[in-house]
Amino acid sequence: MHTARLETFADGVFAIAATLLIIDVSVRAPGGELGDALLHAWPQYGAYAVSFLTIGIMWVNHHACMQLIERADRRFLFINIALLACIAFVPFPTRLIAEHLRDDGLRAAALTYGLTLTITSVCFLTFWSYAAVGHRLIAPGADERMVRGISRAFRPGTPIYAGATLVALISPIASVILFALIAGFYVLESSWFARA
Amino acid sequence: MHTARLETFADGVFAIAATLLIIDVSVRAPGGELGDALLHAWPQYGAYAVSFLTIGIMWVNHHACMQLIERADRRFLFINIALLACIAFVPFPTRLIAEHLRDDGLRAAALTYGLTLTITSVCFLTFWSYAAVGHRLIAPGADERMVRGISRAFRPGTPIYAGATLVALISPIASVILFALIAGFYVLESSWFARA
Amino acid sequence: MHTARLETFADGVFAIAATLLIIDVSVRAPGGELGDALLHAWPQYGAYAVSFLTIGIMWVNHHACMQLIERADRRFLFINIALLACIAFVPFPTRLIAEHLRDDGLRAAALTYGLTLTITSVCFLTFWSYAAVGHRLIAPGADERMVRGISRAFRPGTPIYAGATLVALISPIASVILFALIAGFYVLESSWFARA
Amino acid sequence: MHTARLETFADGVFAIAATLLIIDVSVRAPGGELGDALLHAWPQYGAYAVSFLTIGIMWVNHHACMQLIERADRRFLFINIALLACIAFVPFPTRLIAEHLRDDGLRAAALTYGLTLTITSVCFLTFWSYAAVGHRLIAPGADERMVRGISRAFRPGTPIYAGATLVALISPIASVILFALIAGFYVLESSWFARA
Repeated sequence: MHTARLETFADGVFAIAATLLIIDVSVRAPGGELGDALLHAWPQYGAYAVSFLTIGIMWVNHHACMQLIERADRRFLFINIALLACIAFVPFPTRLIAEHLRDDGLRAAALTYGLTLTITSVCFLTFWSYAAVGHRLIAPGADERMVRGISRAFRPGTPIYAGATLVALISPIASVILFALIAGFYVLESSWFARA
Repeated sequence: MHTARLETFADGVFAIAATLLIIDVSVRAPGGELGDALLHAWPQYGAYAVSFLTIGIMWVNHHACMQLIERADRRFLFINIALLACIAFVPFPTRLIAEHLRDDGLRAAALTYGLTLTITSVCFLTFWSYAAVGHRLIAPGADERMVRGISRAFRPGTPIYAGATLVALISPIASVILFALIAGFYVLESSWFARA
Repeated sequence: MHTARLETFADGVFAIAATLLIIDVSVRAPGGELGDALLHAWPQYGAYAVSFLTIGIMWVNHHACMQLIERADRRFLFINIALLACIAFVPFPTRLIAEHLRDDGLRAAALTYGLTLTITSVCFLTFWSYAAVGHRLIAPGADERMVRGISRAFRPGTPIYAGATLVALISPIASVILFALIAGFYVLESSWFARA
Repeated sequence: MHTARLETFADGVFAIAATLLIIDVSVRAPGGELGDALLHAWPQYGAYAVSFLTIGIMWVNHHACMQLIERADRRFLFINIALLACIAFVPFPTRLIAEHLRDDGLRAAALTYGLTLTITSVCFLTFWSYAAVGHRLIAPGADERMVRGISRAFRPGTPIYAGATLVALISPIASVILFALIAGFYVLESSWFARA
């Protein structure tokens, strides 16, 4: 089975999940107070930016995996669907954080966001491991170092997100800052400091 | 007529129908009660998961069909559009079930969901039969056993969904559990226990 | 300039415009009254079906044009964008008709729907004429009869939709029935009674 | 790294960002007053048209760049994601302008819209410069005049949008008219008066 349609479908879900986030950015105020209301709504813009970036990072990861994967089987299609279901879920906890950044609901919102990303990272690990173990779906000519590089890069994802989620039990705001830092760090690490 | 754009268009509709489901997942509560409200809203997450999986299964089926189909004609394009209209309708009854899982509206919601999936399975059968009868649109080199395998796999879909729909007349909750089991069973049967 | 991305972008807009229609299908009622409310909401399902079909027909037309078109220039890209802006507008008047099918607003709703489709058909004619006049963007090997066939098929679109729109001034409900009949007739004519 | 998936993902985001604009076009009125309400809502249609066109122009630009770009690296993927995040943000300030065109909120709305487009044009410049400087990602056979032509065409974007944004401090309505004129001018300049 070729991977072309798996990629088209995945690109569609990534694009929609990222773009849908804007529906939740909403500021309603009487004309004269719009300026203040727009400034006050900064958590919404921040949540939009962090989530778009996070979904973008996942897309880059998915892209990097699929470059080494040549074939697909039924099980892999379903693992991919489970992964996409997690990614398409991200707009919901994002909205919760934006809405509750300044009230008592932040703990529950941060736990929901963190749990979503932790489960997503488990799905990502499953997705890649299924393809890579025994080179089940890997292209014959694929660079062995790149295969091992991705395996190494994916391993810390789950404990890092699980850790940041647990931080929410002590300090929700620290947890939210961690989520933003993880996203920012990933972009820097994988692009500005890397050679590829 | 080639099938490339039919597949791009279909992938777009599948991706959007699946991803749109998240718009309906919504929890609004004062900060202090957000945690409880999030736990109480589990039917929404369940409905999201079952529907994403169901649309994912349909995508896998569509994918499997299109691998054996080489050409398209006008009628086939319109049958495909009717099929996609059914699939894009799924978010609506899904939302109904999530909203009414714990009240008297569940019977009407389950009947609507079941009717939608029954009609969808009829469209799927029409879609495949139109292409497969007399090998009208099938690729010349297609594996005859795979063609017959799909024909055999599609036949029970309509009676199974019609049956689960009728169960809603007696017990709506049993019907909803059946819908979830059918989706789960399909994934197991077609991927974990199958050879392909 | 190749036409691949023009087609991917167009397929995306078609898929989203068609699928977004489901967001507007919404029935809210207390549990015990859900069944009645769902039956009472039939104009919403009808509007969904007719609009999905109408957007589907436009997709089939766009597809048929692009099979004969080989190249694109800047102007053609912008004509295509204007056409897509019309098509992506269709969910709005569709919602108006579904909401006002049983009240005094139907005349205004039908005029808006008809005006949208009339302008869309003008854009479609411009789209095709720009490509076809002097075979500006037509593939060298394209079948001349198919080029002329499309030119002939597109000509009545604008007067037919303009006519059905004007009918709304006398009888809005007749106008709405005409819109549904035009869509149904097109599908039958172009697929069941045609040879291709 | 090939650019195929970058383009599929981008086309998805462009298509969704443009099409989502219609969700915000909404007119609710009792049946008898629907006609007047629809006429009164013209700022919504205008905002829809200008934004669809603006996103369309950006798509044409992205398309023109990608025709000369052959490869992608990680950094380029992330720059592309930042650019798409800006473009997917456009529906939000568009909605603000449509809602506040006739009240005191127009200044804040126009500043938000202008700021969004100014940042977007900076991202576009970064996107193109990253690829073009030292021909880092440019296809070997690319026409040097076209590369320089794009570099020249992109330079005035940021100051023009920054200027139109500042105009909002003095006259919000003049600023909004400028945004529409810039979009219209671009289409004319790049397609009707150009040779390519």
